[in-house]
Amino acid sequence: MTGPRAPLVPQDPGYAQRVRDSFARQRFMATLGARLVRLEPGLCEIELDYRLDLTQQHEYLHAGVCTSIADSAGGYAAYSLMPAGASVLAVELKVNLLEPGRGERFLARGRVLRAGKRLSVCELEVEAWSDGTAKTCLVGLQTVMCLPGSADDAARGAR
Amino acid sequence: MTGPRAPLVPQDPGYAQRVRDSFARQRFMATLGARLVRLEPGLCEIELDYRLDLTQQHEYLHAGVCTSIADSAGGYAAYSLMPAGASVLAVELKVNLLEPGRGERFLARGRVLRAGKRLSVCELEVEAWSDGTAKTCLVGLQTVMCLPGSADDAARGAR
Amino acid sequence: MTGPRAPLVPQDPGYAQRVRDSFARQRFMATLGARLVRLEPGLCEIELDYRLDLTQQHEYLHAGVCTSIADSAGGYAAYSLMPAGASVLAVELKVNLLEPGRGERFLARGRVLRAGKRLSVCELEVEAWSDGTAKTCLVGLQTVMCLPGSADDAARGAR
Amino acid sequence: MTGPRAPLVPQDPGYAQRVRDSFARQRFMATLGARLVRLEPGLCEIELDYRLDLTQQHEYLHAGVCTSIADSAGGYAAYSLMPAGASVLAVELKVNLLEPGRGERFLARGRVLRAGKRLSVCELEVEAWSDGTAKTCLVGLQTVMCLPGSADDAARGAR
Repeated sequence: MTGPRAPLVPQDPGYAQRVRDSFARQRFMATLGARLVRLEPGLCEIELDYRLDLTQQHEYLHAGVCTSIADSAGGYAAYSLMPAGASVLAVELKVNLLEPGRGERFLARGRVLRAGKRLSVCELEVEAWSDGTAKTCLVGLQTVMCLPGSADDAARGAR
Repeated sequence: MTGPRAPLVPQDPGYAQRVRDSFARQRFMATLGARLVRLEPGLCEIELDYRLDLTQQHEYLHAGVCTSIADSAGGYAAYSLMPAGASVLAVELKVNLLEPGRGERFLARGRVLRAGKRLSVCELEVEAWSDGTAKTCLVGLQTVMCLPGSADDAARGAR
Repeated sequence: MTGPRAPLVPQDPGYAQRVRDSFARQRFMATLGARLVRLEPGLCEIELDYRLDLTQQHEYLHAGVCTSIADSAGGYAAYSLMPAGASVLAVELKVNLLEPGRGERFLARGRVLRAGKRLSVCELEVEAWSDGTAKTCLVGLQTVMCLPGSADDAARGAR
Repeated sequence: MTGPRAPLVPQDPGYAQRVRDSFARQRFMATLGARLVRLEPGLCEIELDYRLDLTQQHEYLHAGVCTSIADSAGGYAAYSLMPAGASVLAVELKVNLLEPGRGERFLARGRVLRAGKRLSVCELEVEAWSDGTAKTCLVGLQTVMCLPGSADDAARGAR
């Protein structure tokens, strides 16, 4: 894809801390052992080590785990471009599982293709790393909503 | 939707044991505390209790958790109709997150809409239950592949 | 699926005329020979006769034609529930093509699963009719945005 | 995205003629005035001029038209890598509509991300061109099936 149409300039100079704080509150990411390893305006990468307790019936990483880190990576890529005080909400998600989740380490990347006032669209990718070589095992697209200046309860009705 | 086009008759009379054995090998489902609670030809339900270690930044169930149990429910709904000795592989998945994952208990349902020799299509749904009331928090569609008579390694190249 | 979570009561008593007027302005629907044949709050059906000039290389209806009438059906299902003066905008769309587009007549149905202030989610279906028998050839999910009180130019930046 | 994982070498040296012949048989592409303007192994571009009879209610190109040329572009990108005698079948498709279809000319691009024996995955994009400037108005993902050595009727049951 040709990538984002507009320069990705963060509206909130404190975006990095805001994203990292929110990621730290995602307890499920800690449960998975996932780490936020790269953050730029409109781009987020989350990494995960293979663990047997995250696998499906053939001992590959469960597709749901790949999808989970891809979802968070996309959400935070979009969140990095939102104004201070906004909430982020994934609206929908589509993934194609190109390969089974075979690898030592998995790197999910979310990248903003369109940053709108209300809706952002991200492309998602997960690479499976083995012996220093990466294979793309998941690609996806995601729609994310920005709820400006919203406490979470207010956010509910606003969608 | 008007539902499946053809009667969903299992090809393998031992389908229930085969599905339950495979589910029991999905260690990630155990990690989530997920249980296979209903299984019929072309239909599978997986249940999960809310736990704080499965949440996102607002203490709702992480969208990736909802998606994970929906993915397994759809995969096993399709697997129930496959011949003995087959392997099942999710090819792609799309979910719409209708509501935040707020509830005490979550019930994922996968139902086969099309059972093909190679490809099956399932509809996915997750209900969030609170105080005896259900709200649909996720709907989705999934494509699943059947790899007949395949050991897992053989399966790789066959896709 | 269990269907919509809330009773689908139109906010605008004049919804039917508003939808029919908008449909009549979709020149592409006329190009396809598509007709709006059923309209209820949150539900819309669009019908099309098979024509050779709408086919792909095997003389089946082109997947894009099925998708086009499904897209319009979903958009108008959602639009029927929006307030007077609003504009409707499809945000994203996913379809599974269950069967080739073989038939004499095609009936697309859009049904609202979630009617939000901003975002609505619809399920989509296309039936292929031959000799009085229907086969589902497409199922899908769609996200639609409501732009309240918006002229089209204002609508652009608001998304 | 990082793009295809393997070098995209056509199995059929006569792929270009085979693709162009098939495209020429897609009568719906002629109805739309769509032209195949670029073809490489794993890549296909289809172009279309704006016409009022292809529009939705606001005189923008109907989303179904954008999706139709994207679907054909992806299908032929995948078909270019298939063996001689194979048939191609789109299995599913997901698009995000980044912008309304505003422009003088629309260019759809399909690119193969994964070329499997049975299933291929393509990324889709449509650019809207005005005054020499392009805006991406659609991005998508598509799964395509290869039916080797199949007459069309045989193809049906094989899926």
